[in-house]
Amino acid sequence: MPTTSKYTWNKIAIVGVGLIGGSIGLALRKRRLAKEIVGIGRRAASLATAKRVGSITASSTNLAKGVADADLVVICTPVDCIVEQVQLVASAAPGALITDVGSTKANIVAGLDRTIRFIGSHPITGNEKRGPQHAAADLFVNRTVIITPSDDSRPGDVRQLKKLWSSLGAKVVSMSADEHDRVVAGISHLPHLLASAIAAATPDRYVTLSAGGWQDTTRIAAGDPALWRQILLANRDHLLTALDQFDERLAAFRSAVERQDAVALEQLLTAAKKIRDAVTP
Amino acid sequence: MPTTSKYTWNKIAIVGVGLIGGSIGLALRKRRLAKEIVGIGRRAASLATAKRVGSITASSTNLAKGVADADLVVICTPVDCIVEQVQLVASAAPGALITDVGSTKANIVAGLDRTIRFIGSHPITGNEKRGPQHAAADLFVNRTVIITPSDDSRPGDVRQLKKLWSSLGAKVVSMSADEHDRVVAGISHLPHLLASAIAAATPDRYVTLSAGGWQDTTRIAAGDPALWRQILLANRDHLLTALDQFDERLAAFRSAVERQDAVALEQLLTAAKKIRDAVTP
Repeated sequence: MPTTSKYTWNKIAIVGVGLIGGSIGLALRKRRLAKEIVGIGRRAASLATAKRVGSITASSTNLAKGVADADLVVICTPVDCIVEQVQLVASAAPGALITDVGSTKANIVAGLDRTIRFIGSHPITGNEKRGPQHAAADLFVNRTVIITPSDDSRPGDVRQLKKLWSSLGAKVVSMSADEHDRVVAGISHLPHLLASAIAAATPDRYVTLSAGGWQDTTRIAAGDPALWRQILLANRDHLLTALDQFDERLAAFRSAVERQDAVALEQLLTAAKKIRDAVTP
Repeated sequence: MPTTSKYTWNKIAIVGVGLIGGSIGLALRKRRLAKEIVGIGRRAASLATAKRVGSITASSTNLAKGVADADLVVICTPVDCIVEQVQLVASAAPGALITDVGSTKANIVAGLDRTIRFIGSHPITGNEKRGPQHAAADLFVNRTVIITPSDDSRPGDVRQLKKLWSSLGAKVVSMSADEHDRVVAGISHLPHLLASAIAAATPDRYVTLSAGGWQDTTRIAAGDPALWRQILLANRDHLLTALDQFDERLAAFRSAVERQDAVALEQLLTAAKKIRDAVTP
């Protein structure tokens, strides 16, 4: 067995070993970045799967025991549980830097005492699969991870968190929790709400006639309703602001169609295409 | 050279040899369904490409000459040009059954004399590529093609048109031109308008942070603005009706978010997921 000094971290604990948590473990192990990777969860079956696919080196159903003596704890549970779990981890592992992978940030920061050593993370992977069996060591390669340090964050902790994600292959972007929530409202939460509304507005008997267009546009509506309900409500204010901005844009498209204004409509479509063409595919 | 009797059609003319027209030619040739396949277009370069990739056996920049003596003529030009071209073809090839591949139908039927031997077709391929160089012989395999016969259509012509598309591997669905336009407003034109509005509402600097969710939802916004402007305006009334229905659905989602009604929001997301899950992937 290699000695501790070969590793960047001695012990990392992952709370919640689903797709994201499991992939973090697998990526850490593949790159030999942590000597011990403890998976913590309520369901023994998920922990067994995570161990079987090689995401973790040990597991526990007891949060306090599992995180004890960890250098770094990554909370990978649904957004509604994160604040409570950060608090529990902070008591059980006072020496650990704590991060999460939740889709919203300001609500977490607001719920935590400023003395807690927590810095939020959000890996933007765009993968709707779930469960430890889908864990992939390359899930974060070339993906963006937003981290949200505050004025209270220690510079060394910010460096450590950047190192974690960049070691897994991600591009790390740093911004405030509030700015993060505004950004993801636009690029993730609003598209999810709209994709769901488009699917919901489509009569059943039309769906079988649909092709790539409808199917691409509504793909994320297949996401887990319970999970997304939490995310959308956790980011309510920014989501509603983004929805207002969308409504304004949509009103311009509607007006051009109503007025049969071919010039205006083509200009609107061209401006939209220009923004979409900035990314591939 | 094989004798004529080996072929289902002696001569098929394709007006407009882009992705769809070129693919029809390629699919016909691969299956040895027509002895002669004449491509007609304004640009010699496109015709040369279509010939090079094997989509057509002959070409002409003269519509009347190109379609003379054809058994079947397929118009594959943008929707704004279809009515005029059907009329020209009907004069130049009085013995031919004429069809098209346009995305709207009622406006075409309304523009044509009822004595003209035209039955509309709409292959729903969901492919945003353009140009004869992208022609693919299997473009229609397992795709839906909607045909829109009217009360004036001859039963033999309807059978011939069904045979054309089913020979190319497509599933053929028959409905009225008006019903067609109502369906495609929901599954194609509204999603296009909304995908464009979502892209247009996204600040440039957020786009580089986007992942699969935003990118799937806005993919079709990359389509050709000039082409889509025509399609959206050609189906204006049904599109606005579909937009009203979407607005109603969206208002329910917005209200649930505003009221922070977790139960209602999860129900809405679940209903949307159920509709989306009816198709794969």
